[in-house]
Amino acid sequence: MSHGDVDPELEMTSPHWMHREAESCPRMHTIWRLERWRSSMLLLIGLALCVLRAPGCSATDTDIALDAKATLNHRIQSLDLLVFVFLLALTVLTIWLFKHHRVSWLHETGLAVIYGLIVGAIIRYAGTSATLVHMQVEPQGVPTYSDKLPPDTLWFRYPVNQTNSTKLPEGIKTYAYVFRGQVHDVDENEIDLKATFDPEVFFNIILPPIIFYAGYSLKKKYFFRNLGAILTFAIVGTTLSAFLIGGFMYGCVKLMPNYLSSSFSFLDTLYFGALISPTDPLTILAIFNDLRVDVNLYALVLGESVLNDAVAIVLSGAIQNYGEHYSDTGEFETTAFLRSLSDFFSIFLLSLMIGAAMGCLTALMTKFTRVRDFPLLESALFVLMSYSTFLLAEATELTGVVAVLFCGICQAHYTYNNLSEDSRQRTKQIFELLNFLAENFIFSYIGVSMFTFPKHHFDAGFIITAFICAAIGRAVNVYPLSWLLNIRRKPKISSNFQHMLFFAGLRGAMSFALAIRNTVSDARQTMLTATSLIVIFTVVIQGGAANFLLNWLKIPVGVDDETEQLNNYQVHSSDGYLQDVEGGGVGRGKVRLSGGTDSNLDTSVDGPNGSLGGASSGRRRNSHEKAILARIWGNFDTKYMKPLLTHSRPTLLETLPVCCNPIARLLTTTQQLTQDGSEFRRVDSDSDICIDNDTGNGLSQDATGAVPGSGVGVGRRNSLSRMEILEHVQSPVSTRIRLLGFYGKKL
Amino acid sequence: MSHGDVDPELEMTSPHWMHREAESCPRMHTIWRLERWRSSMLLLIGLALCVLRAPGCSATDTDIALDAKATLNHRIQSLDLLVFVFLLALTVLTIWLFKHHRVSWLHETGLAVIYGLIVGAIIRYAGTSATLVHMQVEPQGVPTYSDKLPPDTLWFRYPVNQTNSTKLPEGIKTYAYVFRGQVHDVDENEIDLKATFDPEVFFNIILPPIIFYAGYSLKKKYFFRNLGAILTFAIVGTTLSAFLIGGFMYGCVKLMPNYLSSSFSFLDTLYFGALISPTDPLTILAIFNDLRVDVNLYALVLGESVLNDAVAIVLSGAIQNYGEHYSDTGEFETTAFLRSLSDFFSIFLLSLMIGAAMGCLTALMTKFTRVRDFPLLESALFVLMSYSTFLLAEATELTGVVAVLFCGICQAHYTYNNLSEDSRQRTKQIFELLNFLAENFIFSYIGVSMFTFPKHHFDAGFIITAFICAAIGRAVNVYPLSWLLNIRRKPKISSNFQHMLFFAGLRGAMSFALAIRNTVSDARQTMLTATSLIVIFTVVIQGGAANFLLNWLKIPVGVDDETEQLNNYQVHSSDGYLQDVEGGGVGRGKVRLSGGTDSNLDTSVDGPNGSLGGASSGRRRNSHEKAILARIWGNFDTKYMKPLLTHSRPTLLETLPVCCNPIARLLTTTQQLTQDGSEFRRVDSDSDICIDNDTGNGLSQDATGAVPGSGVGVGRRNSLSRMEILEHVQSPVSTRIRLLGFYGKKL
Repeated sequence: MSHGDVDPELEMTSPHWMHREAESCPRMHTIWRLERWRSSMLLLIGLALCVLRAPGCSATDTDIALDAKATLNHRIQSLDLLVFVFLLALTVLTIWLFKHHRVSWLHETGLAVIYGLIVGAIIRYAGTSATLVHMQVEPQGVPTYSDKLPPDTLWFRYPVNQTNSTKLPEGIKTYAYVFRGQVHDVDENEIDLKATFDPEVFFNIILPPIIFYAGYSLKKKYFFRNLGAILTFAIVGTTLSAFLIGGFMYGCVKLMPNYLSSSFSFLDTLYFGALISPTDPLTILAIFNDLRVDVNLYALVLGESVLNDAVAIVLSGAIQNYGEHYSDTGEFETTAFLRSLSDFFSIFLLSLMIGAAMGCLTALMTKFTRVRDFPLLESALFVLMSYSTFLLAEATELTGVVAVLFCGICQAHYTYNNLSEDSRQRTKQIFELLNFLAENFIFSYIGVSMFTFPKHHFDAGFIITAFICAAIGRAVNVYPLSWLLNIRRKPKISSNFQHMLFFAGLRGAMSFALAIRNTVSDARQTMLTATSLIVIFTVVIQGGAANFLLNWLKIPVGVDDETEQLNNYQVHSSDGYLQDVEGGGVGRGKVRLSGGTDSNLDTSVDGPNGSLGGASSGRRRNSHEKAILARIWGNFDTKYMKPLLTHSRPTLLETLPVCCNPIARLLTTTQQLTQDGSEFRRVDSDSDICIDNDTGNGLSQDATGAVPGSGVGVGRRNSLSRMEILEHVQSPVSTRIRLLGFYGKKL
Repeated sequence: MSHGDVDPELEMTSPHWMHREAESCPRMHTIWRLERWRSSMLLLIGLALCVLRAPGCSATDTDIALDAKATLNHRIQSLDLLVFVFLLALTVLTIWLFKHHRVSWLHETGLAVIYGLIVGAIIRYAGTSATLVHMQVEPQGVPTYSDKLPPDTLWFRYPVNQTNSTKLPEGIKTYAYVFRGQVHDVDENEIDLKATFDPEVFFNIILPPIIFYAGYSLKKKYFFRNLGAILTFAIVGTTLSAFLIGGFMYGCVKLMPNYLSSSFSFLDTLYFGALISPTDPLTILAIFNDLRVDVNLYALVLGESVLNDAVAIVLSGAIQNYGEHYSDTGEFETTAFLRSLSDFFSIFLLSLMIGAAMGCLTALMTKFTRVRDFPLLESALFVLMSYSTFLLAEATELTGVVAVLFCGICQAHYTYNNLSEDSRQRTKQIFELLNFLAENFIFSYIGVSMFTFPKHHFDAGFIITAFICAAIGRAVNVYPLSWLLNIRRKPKISSNFQHMLFFAGLRGAMSFALAIRNTVSDARQTMLTATSLIVIFTVVIQGGAANFLLNWLKIPVGVDDETEQLNNYQVHSSDGYLQDVEGGGVGRGKVRLSGGTDSNLDTSVDGPNGSLGGASSGRRRNSHEKAILARIWGNFDTKYMKPLLTHSRPTLLETLPVCCNPIARLLTTTQQLTQDGSEFRRVDSDSDICIDNDTGNGLSQDATGAVPGSGVGVGRRNSLSRMEILEHVQSPVSTRIRLLGFYGKKL
């Protein structure tokens, strides 16, 4: 085999192949560029032509040609990135136009995808093609290298000794080549090495800010109120859906007559099931937000999609591990399955713990230093700690995405309370912007890559099957689980809500990132194509139709949180709600040493015991069981975690046993001891970190929150919040001003 | 030559070489990683050991080993980045501690460098060493490849055919290797390809936000007031200093007996001169800011360091071009010199124009769309347009750094006025944070790289010479030019100021980035080492001593802008100032059709005619000449640019000839026509975008600015501003609230 012919393809670098490269996606940093210098465009073209013409090989010529090529590469990469940046700018402008004219049938992500498709098509069909130059090589002399791994670098003497030793040795240079990957198809592979946007960019650059922001901006109140349903949908539902889709797909693929049936293993289809199961909240939530749809529906959709991203990434990792390490045959083996299962849980839990621990560490840092006096330093610390969570998890072979999600939740729950007002604004705004840019970038890229990514593999049969299976998987996720949940849930998930949940199952960034991560085999390439199409279809068509469907299903829109609550309490079961809250209050009363009613309002925010929104007697036992766990955590949080990590009352001095007083004193700040509870309350508000225009609500609730459940309290709360909302709409800074009432005094 | 022995180094991937890699710097994205999966650490080590033990080659084993290696690589990169992120977090915490305890002898950049040095030393001496595996290869079969460039990729069959055709073909895979660069020293080169942090990261990721922020946050008022001196120092001074240092160094190097004299050409030393000439404002300005040093000194130091970065990068590019393309001999050639010179000017000017054009484009976009209704979209657009300026300049072979600097200035001058309050806050805060992180990252890296970067080349003689030459170059920059400037400048640059200017010549990010960009030759490596040491020394020692020197030189500290102005007017030459301003006022009065005194206050902000701060009769002629150019631009700006690009009055309808009315109407927004001048004035303030705590001033000046030059006006302005400053210190949001007075009404 070693006596194959030399097969250098000689289509060379000319101004043409720039177009070809522009097809590619931006490989953000080149590690193999030598140096860059500037010269005019003409000079460059001249040089390139000169290179093409001159057959002689002088070292200087080669150097200059290499330099020219490096410069060209840099320019092409800049151009590639520029295309995406312009695409994003265009998307931003068009979104504004749409919002301005109240166009609701197309949302920003859909727009980004469509623009991406158009630009991708232009690049594809307008560009001329040229290829990279390959050369097959073999070791110099007698090959004695006998290691298991191919070498990290190859050293290659150039110019090749055509006439053997008639050349002067100083004209010969040694060039280094670094390992890139396996060549799977020698015939059509030249694009492979040139035009791929490293998929890891998605995982290491694009996804973390999106996921962190999801955690950081979670409306915790509604999230916890619907925690049971969210966890059921996210964990049980996603796993169920993954296995079902995997099974269905496997069956269908095996029925297909063509090559597909041989290239797909069950693990492949299972992986497909895992990657196509997570839903993307973006488009739907944007619509929900605009229309102010029912908050519980909002919380369900958001909570589910946030968590099922995390579940899906760990699940797909476990499936890959199963295939690569545990199983010898690829068939079902109990031990391998169990090991994958334990992987799944241990990685998920450890990642969660790392995220939470880093969040708490940041809270401690911001509590015990007065870094809040310097908001810039504080924000920098916040960003650095959050990013290091991701890196830490990745460095310890856990899942950075999961860690960063729970870090975001902890940062919002604890650290946010310690931040200065300036840092709160800044961190919220920065992550909002990062999230926006990252989301739109990924959707633009999905569009562009449909035309430019070289490893698509269209197979109509598979794609149709995938569409059907994805729909079935979503249905299995939503309807049976809703039915199960409805048994013990009082404000039942109505069938219209279920239809909407089914319909809200758009696929997005996470599915695409998982699909593009590995495209070595035909099966994987077919999966990527199907995934891309499903994402594009769901985002553009389903996203666009969501509005009409909301109307058609008569789902209440234009409600705000408080109206919703009010309705719930009054219509459904005000007594159940009262009992529930009072139960929580009593449970807490037993352990609280002082602090009076101050901490009561945390009940509605944190205590998942009131979370299922009005309990009937049929739910009593269940809610009791659940309430124990939830109450234990709620208590623990209020008694130990919050006093430890934030400046909230009661302090540890009050909650810890007397013998621990010295330690407790150490862990309690002067600010905590000296603050005036009622004023501090305004700052120490969890619900005050919410998406968009909920700030006013969060504040109003705090102001009156001490009497939840009483009719008067609710009424007052409602009217107050309306005032605040109006104020809020009028001037988004008004809340800041109010917050500064407290703040100003301290300075 | 082709019959050299196979020389694979067999030290293999074992858990050890992780340490070695950790020595390296974070190569942020690997483009050559295959795929990533997770498994526990133990499994990995087990696999690696297994790989080391088993001599047989089965394809699956190789795959798994490759996977394990890819995972390990990913983990190591995460660890590397984590080291830097933790370093930054540590720096932030320590800075806070220092600020808290009012330690002034060490500043954040110095701290970052010192921490970097410590961590670098730990990594260097704690890590065990291992190397990458190289293999020398030659083309398969008969080499017929005869192109000028080495191939882009090599394809390598593995396992190598040890026994030739006894292996099964399916066990053999083809791996791709991508071109990385030239191997200069075959003996010691293994680190080269492994541990380098791509220097282009500095130019494409780290520098742009720093430079953009410098432009965006420029105190334009003081900048323009000292424009003459700043331009002289930055352009003439930097060029002079570069050539002088280059010449000195060349002379000294040639006197040295050792190998140095042969490895340095004049172009090399000239390049060194260009890279060591730009000064870094960071540390000094932080100190100046803390101490509220004389504003003119502040403006001189800031303005010079902002511009000389741009000059140095273009200058070094021109020098490189001279060496690589224009000159055949490396000696002086007139044509080559002239071509480099024209390169220098054309690249500088074209970059400037691209930057300005993109800034103006953004201004137009924000003016004519009402994207300000959606601050998130607006901020995204702003960020995207600013970044695309950089990319556009790079894609057209201009200098992105220069473009982004002038883009920043235009964004601050025009676009900022069109932004919503939310976006102003957000963009300022985001770029402030990015700038902070980037600056500290680069200084940490300078510290770490002293120990871990493999291409340092210590040569005591060169380093000492470099230190001396750098000081001489700075002296030549400051003293003669100050003397020249003082001839026609009335508030003369006193000798104490000159000493301080000399002393403020810290070297920083730009010098380091330019030095690390190219380290192929011994000369370049020696230059890198010298540059690193000069940066570290100046930042830590000079930065630390700046405080004491300010005291020793009796430079006024604790002044604020207004006191300074007041002093200037009263002490130096109040009549000269008055004349100057009135001259400007009259010049403007001629062309203004309406709008009354409203636009007068732009005089003090933009008009460089008042810029030299009080004119004596000796300056009359000079100032008149200068004033013509400056006044023309000032007029043009007020009459056409501002009305076109912002919502300011007078509108184009008033300034354009009557025949252009239809066009003028198109380019004038309703807001521009209907606004109440006095209220809008508050929003349309340039000086309101200033570093740190200058916001109060900017506002106060606007409120009273219509009567500049009158003693009463100045007094009133001064007292008002004091009030506002106090208010500002008390609550940083108060200015926002005031701005929202206008804002609230509109909504």
